[in-house]
Amino acid sequence: LAIGDTSPAIVGLACVQLAPEFGDLTGNRGRAAAAIRDAARAGADLIVLPELCTTGYAFADRAEALQYSEPADGPSIREWRALASEHGAVIVAGFCERDPDGAPRNSAAVVQPDGACTIYRKTHLWDREQTTFVAGLEPPPVVDTAAGRIGLAICYDAFFPEVMRALAVAGAELIAVPMNSPAPIPAPPPSAVLASEIVLALAAATVNRVYVAQADRSGPERGIEWSQASAICDPDGGLVAGPVSGVGLLRATCDMRRPRDKVLGMRNHVLADRRAELYGAAAAGARTPDSQPTNEMVN
Amino acid sequence: LAIGDTSPAIVGLACVQLAPEFGDLTGNRGRAAAAIRDAARAGADLIVLPELCTTGYAFADRAEALQYSEPADGPSIREWRALASEHGAVIVAGFCERDPDGAPRNSAAVVQPDGACTIYRKTHLWDREQTTFVAGLEPPPVVDTAAGRIGLAICYDAFFPEVMRALAVAGAELIAVPMNSPAPIPAPPPSAVLASEIVLALAAATVNRVYVAQADRSGPERGIEWSQASAICDPDGGLVAGPVSGVGLLRATCDMRRPRDKVLGMRNHVLADRRAELYGAAAAGARTPDSQPTNEMVN
Repeated sequence: LAIGDTSPAIVGLACVQLAPEFGDLTGNRGRAAAAIRDAARAGADLIVLPELCTTGYAFADRAEALQYSEPADGPSIREWRALASEHGAVIVAGFCERDPDGAPRNSAAVVQPDGACTIYRKTHLWDREQTTFVAGLEPPPVVDTAAGRIGLAICYDAFFPEVMRALAVAGAELIAVPMNSPAPIPAPPPSAVLASEIVLALAAATVNRVYVAQADRSGPERGIEWSQASAICDPDGGLVAGPVSGVGLLRATCDMRRPRDKVLGMRNHVLADRRAELYGAAAAGARTPDSQPTNEMVN
Repeated sequence: LAIGDTSPAIVGLACVQLAPEFGDLTGNRGRAAAAIRDAARAGADLIVLPELCTTGYAFADRAEALQYSEPADGPSIREWRALASEHGAVIVAGFCERDPDGAPRNSAAVVQPDGACTIYRKTHLWDREQTTFVAGLEPPPVVDTAAGRIGLAICYDAFFPEVMRALAVAGAELIAVPMNSPAPIPAPPPSAVLASEIVLALAAATVNRVYVAQADRSGPERGIEWSQASAICDPDGGLVAGPVSGVGLLRATCDMRRPRDKVLGMRNHVLADRRAELYGAAAAGARTPDSQPTNEMVN
């Protein structure tokens, strides 16, 4: 694929912070559809919705997740395909998937106007998700769309800089992050200038020179409050939009030529400057000063 | 090494933001020594100084760097060893090293009260450093000290989340980051809530559950202004101290039991939750949707 030949230069981006009602699939699909229509009418070519936006999050157990799950060709994806086609927009959204083996997955879809749909199953499960969902076996994908090369990570996935880096190396220009991030208990200390989720989004945007489009949720659910950390970050690490409290729509106009240029200053390049030969050895196991013969020891 | 048996629980930490005068080695050593004494008197067990704190930064070329360079057993290290011994404190500081082959290195030292000294040579060179210095071949080290297990990265090294992760995996409880970070030109947009250097420090602290002790510099030099991004971040991603404008001393009391505990919430662990098998494949090269056979394609 010749980047720059077929990829768009300017993309209208929207991140939607929703407040689903637990278990109200019909109502939640309607709220998502209304938000998609609003965003598309406001000019969005790419619309990112939260994790598990049709079901809610706080499943009691696997059986309850299965009760509300649907296959990848179920009603949520069908509706998003119709909306993507109708509005000519790419939709990224999380849903509770029942996979072909009947297992519940915390999944997200990239749905394109031509009907193409890529499903990703969350690979890093947070807390009780570990007892509710089966973790994905495939890495987060990068999908070529009319709104650019979209990388996908779901909530806690984005806590791993390796995930964001791998997506950027694979060509992602924008990383979409459907999110349902429970607020920390106790609340963050006053020293927390920004929510951790936004700090991590800004850092990933900066070191990879990509856009990050994060769509968190709102609305208390079964005792959980949310960080409400929806944000749009640009490749210079600017916080372009967000966060927002409650239900809200974040918008930005993305110049996709920017994430294609990984050059920093006059002589640096955020991907080419990596020295992978130095990371593996250190990451492979604990080292002590005694095992570093080539560092000078002056005694 | 049995972590927890011999490692300290509480460490007094100081990060010193200095304003060296370019080329004034004697004056700069004196300023560094005075700051070390102040920090030690204020209770610091670990004192972090900026990158290249005895020479200044903006060398015209390799010859000028060599002119101001010194070997790893030169006067700067000798003075820091004497101060470390006198005050019972660990000193981390950057200096312009002339290596045994006569090449200039952008180096930092971890100097301990018993005289042990570990030298690290910066491996990710920023901008004109590429024409001035020879890059290090050895990974950033982790050094066991009476002030905890100290990881070391110099300025642009910390732009690579791989570096910070590798140090954490190698057992670093605190990552010291001597820094000379030229301020961005043009100035950061109003959307920049925090300097990028501080965002990256907070993110590294959060995802690795380590302390990050960053010591930047101040004082214009040969047309360069500085980000002045000195900061102390804790393992929950709190900004404990900094930034500061001009010359300043940041202090914190570090509970080193915190970075030894990598557990998040009830069921998560920031290192054990990594799924390394998913990162290499994606990072190895560009992927397209067509090469992801196991992601569902619904058409």
